[in-house]
Amino acid sequence: MEAEKLALWRAPLARALHLNRSLPQSRYFQLATIRQNGYPANRTVVYRGFRDQTNQIQMISDLRSEKIQQINNSPLAEICWYFSQTREQFRFTGTLTLISADSNLQSIRLQIWQQLSNAARLQFAWPEPKQPRIEAKEAFLPPTPSVNEPLPNFGLLLFDSIEVDHLELRGEPQNRSHYQLDQQHEWSVKSINP
Amino acid sequence: MEAEKLALWRAPLARALHLNRSLPQSRYFQLATIRQNGYPANRTVVYRGFRDQTNQIQMISDLRSEKIQQINNSPLAEICWYFSQTREQFRFTGTLTLISADSNLQSIRLQIWQQLSNAARLQFAWPEPKQPRIEAKEAFLPPTPSVNEPLPNFGLLLFDSIEVDHLELRGEPQNRSHYQLDQQHEWSVKSINP
Repeated sequence: MEAEKLALWRAPLARALHLNRSLPQSRYFQLATIRQNGYPANRTVVYRGFRDQTNQIQMISDLRSEKIQQINNSPLAEICWYFSQTREQFRFTGTLTLISADSNLQSIRLQIWQQLSNAARLQFAWPEPKQPRIEAKEAFLPPTPSVNEPLPNFGLLLFDSIEVDHLELRGEPQNRSHYQLDQQHEWSVKSINP
Repeated sequence: MEAEKLALWRAPLARALHLNRSLPQSRYFQLATIRQNGYPANRTVVYRGFRDQTNQIQMISDLRSEKIQQINNSPLAEICWYFSQTREQFRFTGTLTLISADSNLQSIRLQIWQQLSNAARLQFAWPEPKQPRIEAKEAFLPPTPSVNEPLPNFGLLLFDSIEVDHLELRGEPQNRSHYQLDQQHEWSVKSINP
């Protein structure tokens, strides 16, 4: 694969991640998708880094969760990432691609699975999400899944941006930059009113 | 107006707001709406309390911002509210109603305007958001708006929930409650798998 050029917005995002590194929640963001009934859906998701040599943001998901049906129906999504220490927000407009057990890119799916904590891997062996609560505690204490073989319901999500809106509330008065991907897959940026 | 009964999810939300009160960002949440091109939109918004005697969540918006066009096109929305101190998340599915200068409820619109800081009111007199950046600093130093008369582009947003999903990551293993509004406008709750 040819390496993708680092997008223009990668430097300010890396800076925000660095300056907010003392807060664990700086590695969480909110992912909006579209429900099958037309309502938007919005939930907190853990940032799992960028796919090597690309500008794709990585996340994970249980294939049994509602967001998978939503993504199969429409891949359109927006990420809102607020950094409270530096008081800045990034909004990424784009599309999601699901990497499941029968997709290409199994080596990345395996790599992300291996990087998870034991506790995070264990959640993929829990009972089905959003079903009536199973009260037996043993249901949530399944055998430890293998580190070397992702469970079949483990999905990797790759997010491709087409627009990025960066707002810095601490500016004088505030700074806002708008990044856009053109037909030639080149990023451009302009300064806009906050 | 007849007072609305306090929704079942108000107590756990009030508790979260209380326990996370030391963090200013606990009063921010992420609001997802639908763009006219079908993409979801997602941004951080400041919580402005509940409308008296109701379960409506209040927010404010500049009428010149894109979210207003989105809401006029589709009022469907979802709020994702993550509390990092207690590690819990509320997701509110519902609809938005815009209160502008020619709507009913002017007394509430005025009241929220009056409760804003001077700095917050001043932003409604700034140049048009998202237009090419005006470099002259004076453009962002307009005359102070009157406390007693909201600027015409000041909008109040009221959010009505139909479903609320409450996830507590600190549970053993985790706790998740699903609240639903029925045809009789009564809330019910059930415990579901995380």
